[in-house]
Amino acid sequence: MSKESKAKEPTEVTNTELVLPSHTNHYGNIFGGTLVSFMDITGGLAAMLFCNEEVVTASIEALDFKTPIKQGDVIEQKGRVLYTGKTSMVVSVEVYRVEKFTGNKDFCCEGYFIYVAIDKEGNPKPVPAVKILTESDKQNWEIGRGIKDRALERKKHEP
Amino acid sequence: MSKESKAKEPTEVTNTELVLPSHTNHYGNIFGGTLVSFMDITGGLAAMLFCNEEVVTASIEALDFKTPIKQGDVIEQKGRVLYTGKTSMVVSVEVYRVEKFTGNKDFCCEGYFIYVAIDKEGNPKPVPAVKILTESDKQNWEIGRGIKDRALERKKHEP
Amino acid sequence: MSKESKAKEPTEVTNTELVLPSHTNHYGNIFGGTLVSFMDITGGLAAMLFCNEEVVTASIEALDFKTPIKQGDVIEQKGRVLYTGKTSMVVSVEVYRVEKFTGNKDFCCEGYFIYVAIDKEGNPKPVPAVKILTESDKQNWEIGRGIKDRALERKKHEP
Amino acid sequence: MSKESKAKEPTEVTNTELVLPSHTNHYGNIFGGTLVSFMDITGGLAAMLFCNEEVVTASIEALDFKTPIKQGDVIEQKGRVLYTGKTSMVVSVEVYRVEKFTGNKDFCCEGYFIYVAIDKEGNPKPVPAVKILTESDKQNWEIGRGIKDRALERKKHEP
Amino acid sequence: MSKESKAKEPTEVTNTELVLPSHTNHYGNIFGGTLVSFMDITGGLAAMLFCNEEVVTASIEALDFKTPIKQGDVIEQKGRVLYTGKTSMVVSVEVYRVEKFTGNKDFCCEGYFIYVAIDKEGNPKPVPAVKILTESDKQNWEIGRGIKDRALERKKHEP
Amino acid sequence: MSKESKAKEPTEVTNTELVLPSHTNHYGNIFGGTLVSFMDITGGLAAMLFCNEEVVTASIEALDFKTPIKQGDVIEQKGRVLYTGKTSMVVSVEVYRVEKFTGNKDFCCEGYFIYVAIDKEGNPKPVPAVKILTESDKQNWEIGRGIKDRALERKKHEP
Repeated sequence: MSKESKAKEPTEVTNTELVLPSHTNHYGNIFGGTLVSFMDITGGLAAMLFCNEEVVTASIEALDFKTPIKQGDVIEQKGRVLYTGKTSMVVSVEVYRVEKFTGNKDFCCEGYFIYVAIDKEGNPKPVPAVKILTESDKQNWEIGRGIKDRALERKKHEP
Repeated sequence: MSKESKAKEPTEVTNTELVLPSHTNHYGNIFGGTLVSFMDITGGLAAMLFCNEEVVTASIEALDFKTPIKQGDVIEQKGRVLYTGKTSMVVSVEVYRVEKFTGNKDFCCEGYFIYVAIDKEGNPKPVPAVKILTESDKQNWEIGRGIKDRALERKKHEP
Repeated sequence: MSKESKAKEPTEVTNTELVLPSHTNHYGNIFGGTLVSFMDITGGLAAMLFCNEEVVTASIEALDFKTPIKQGDVIEQKGRVLYTGKTSMVVSVEVYRVEKFTGNKDFCCEGYFIYVAIDKEGNPKPVPAVKILTESDKQNWEIGRGIKDRALERKKHEP
Repeated sequence: MSKESKAKEPTEVTNTELVLPSHTNHYGNIFGGTLVSFMDITGGLAAMLFCNEEVVTASIEALDFKTPIKQGDVIEQKGRVLYTGKTSMVVSVEVYRVEKFTGNKDFCCEGYFIYVAIDKEGNPKPVPAVKILTESDKQNWEIGRGIKDRALERKKHEP
Repeated sequence: MSKESKAKEPTEVTNTELVLPSHTNHYGNIFGGTLVSFMDITGGLAAMLFCNEEVVTASIEALDFKTPIKQGDVIEQKGRVLYTGKTSMVVSVEVYRVEKFTGNKDFCCEGYFIYVAIDKEGNPKPVPAVKILTESDKQNWEIGRGIKDRALERKKHEP
Repeated sequence: MSKESKAKEPTEVTNTELVLPSHTNHYGNIFGGTLVSFMDITGGLAAMLFCNEEVVTASIEALDFKTPIKQGDVIEQKGRVLYTGKTSMVVSVEVYRVEKFTGNKDFCCEGYFIYVAIDKEGNPKPVPAVKILTESDKQNWEIGRGIKDRALERKKHEP
């Protein structure tokens, strides 16, 4: 069976959370590490459900916190597989703050995570290619490849 | 403006979670209370985003745990507003176990929650009616009304 | 040895908790899911100590939240085995808010939980009957049987 | 009103807990700090319900961990006010491991905590005396006074 | 007083953690989001103690997870302010796995975080410059400036 | 090889924490049990890294809470092995509140913990002696021995 035939449509995972006191820092905003934990779960699930394997987080790419998210806010996260290498998947996680009284959504931040599929011994396992159906899929694939390239570039400069 | 004109399409909130060691009991299954917490968040968000108000949980209706959910399992929850009274909303939350290696979904349990919209002083606030568009919306509305009736019935028998 | 001879007096488990910030929602009240978690622990312990076996939660029956419980409040829970079937136990959990400055107790909510005793393989195991000593024990047994009947009724209507 | 008339019978608070994975260290035993947290809650509640005031923990007296408590174990704690000074209360917290399959209780550890009643500004507030009804109350009062004396002794040697 | 005179020596914060079951994913390794939370605390403290102001996390720069960290492992983190702009600080957080039975330290990952000092209204506040004392301080300053430049570059490309 | 030659310099572990809402009681101060958990981790790590073995907490010695620590405060802990017996280690943990806006450190409390080194079966294992290099090491060793003696004294009086 050719690789082509195994290409899969990109998976999207949506998660909505209510920001509780146990998620906040002492300003009453969501604590940065808590938000990254939420995003890592959402991104990891998108990867896991795409490749139907166990996965581990290999890297977190640059992540900018733009709008403060407050206790009692509703946040919506969208995780999406953009690009895959042989055993790795580049996943974007977008975070929106849902304005409770209008339902409007404000973009808060976006992060890119790289996950690797693993077998029971923890060794990397091949993953399907992303099936490109729309122009937007193609743009996502390009973004994902750029991110993967930057991660490989970093690896070269490692001591 | 008539009540009719304010009727809104039922909101659905989907949440996917990975069962971590901190969610489990000593058998390695998800702890019942943790699962209800997840369902209460998902249901509360469906209610909150439907009425665009703050909400509080008024009751949890009968909830049967059918399939054990294990550490490392992926669960998908779907919260949906079925029926609304003047200030209350009946919300169903379905829980599925996503079979990681096939993507198949097994139904695990379903619960019904009643939420009440509140204003800043914590007093009940009117909520929109559910717009009935499909046969399935109608069936849901009937189920929701039945649940609301049972809750009212219980209230009568209170000491 | 006959079944009769194994009948046991109903076990009661009392738990008192202080509502900390990590238990609350963004209104400063106890979060519904947290309260159910507390009740499930208390009820499960009552079942476990009654049958001297491991137990799992089979269902949560209707549970009405009446009085809001606030951060810093003291809550007292009483779990009690009311009725037993062959392998299942119906347990009531009452929750009181203890007024700190007077010691008065306000009734907050009551829930009914059904637990099943299990062996090491997770298969159901027989449990003792509840010994009926007082008129109140008898009333509890009737309430418990009614709850068990409703749970069985729900099971019939399952798809 | 004389001081005598305000003497109160000693309060006892009982708490039963199930040791979940989130309570354990990497050996599968309860983590020491978690157990002390449980004991501090139980002891603080005994003090709070005795004096009907808010309280703060002033000191933890020597506490020996004797029997390891494992994941899935049931522990029972008994908190009891032994002795009171003008604004402080000496509370003992006993911890037992409940043997699930027999109901037998093994003594695990005992700790002594000193709490101080406070008003809204956080200043110490007088507390009732402990009413001595039995010989055992008297022995407890002596133990409590000894502990209070040792705490005062430590204070003298502070830099 | 000139800016020069306010330059401060770089602050270093060291934190050591024991990986407990509540920190792990279902493989028994530390969960990625938990590790980032630890690193964000350590980095934020280094920034806070450097500028003697409250700080918020503005961005997390690329972070590669190299060595899996297991339940029961000891990890040591070193947070260090490398470079400061007008109101922002670039902080590196290095994570080492301490081999318990030898005391050897394995490098696990390094992350760069950007923090902004804020006043009580949440507005950015000036921070001191980093005093360059050694060749290593100078190299760190260059690395930090490169990271800050990349973050500014990303900002330009934002929609 | 003689015992002497295995003597090791005392290990010190420093940990800095930010007090988040999830660490507090309902007055907005750090909850006593949370602080003891932090101290037990810091002390346990100092013991573990000193003897290069797994350790368990055997006892917590008298611990006085002097200064209230508030949400948003920075606390610094220093854990240090003072004295060792054949298989046990006496560790002091000092807690300071770091004044954010000046960097000044206020002493908050000090606790003494006794840890025992264990092998894989959980049996006690010999630990190295503490190498005495300075006058301060010697004073610490005397303090540690006094604490160990008091713990042994308690053991004699056990029922």
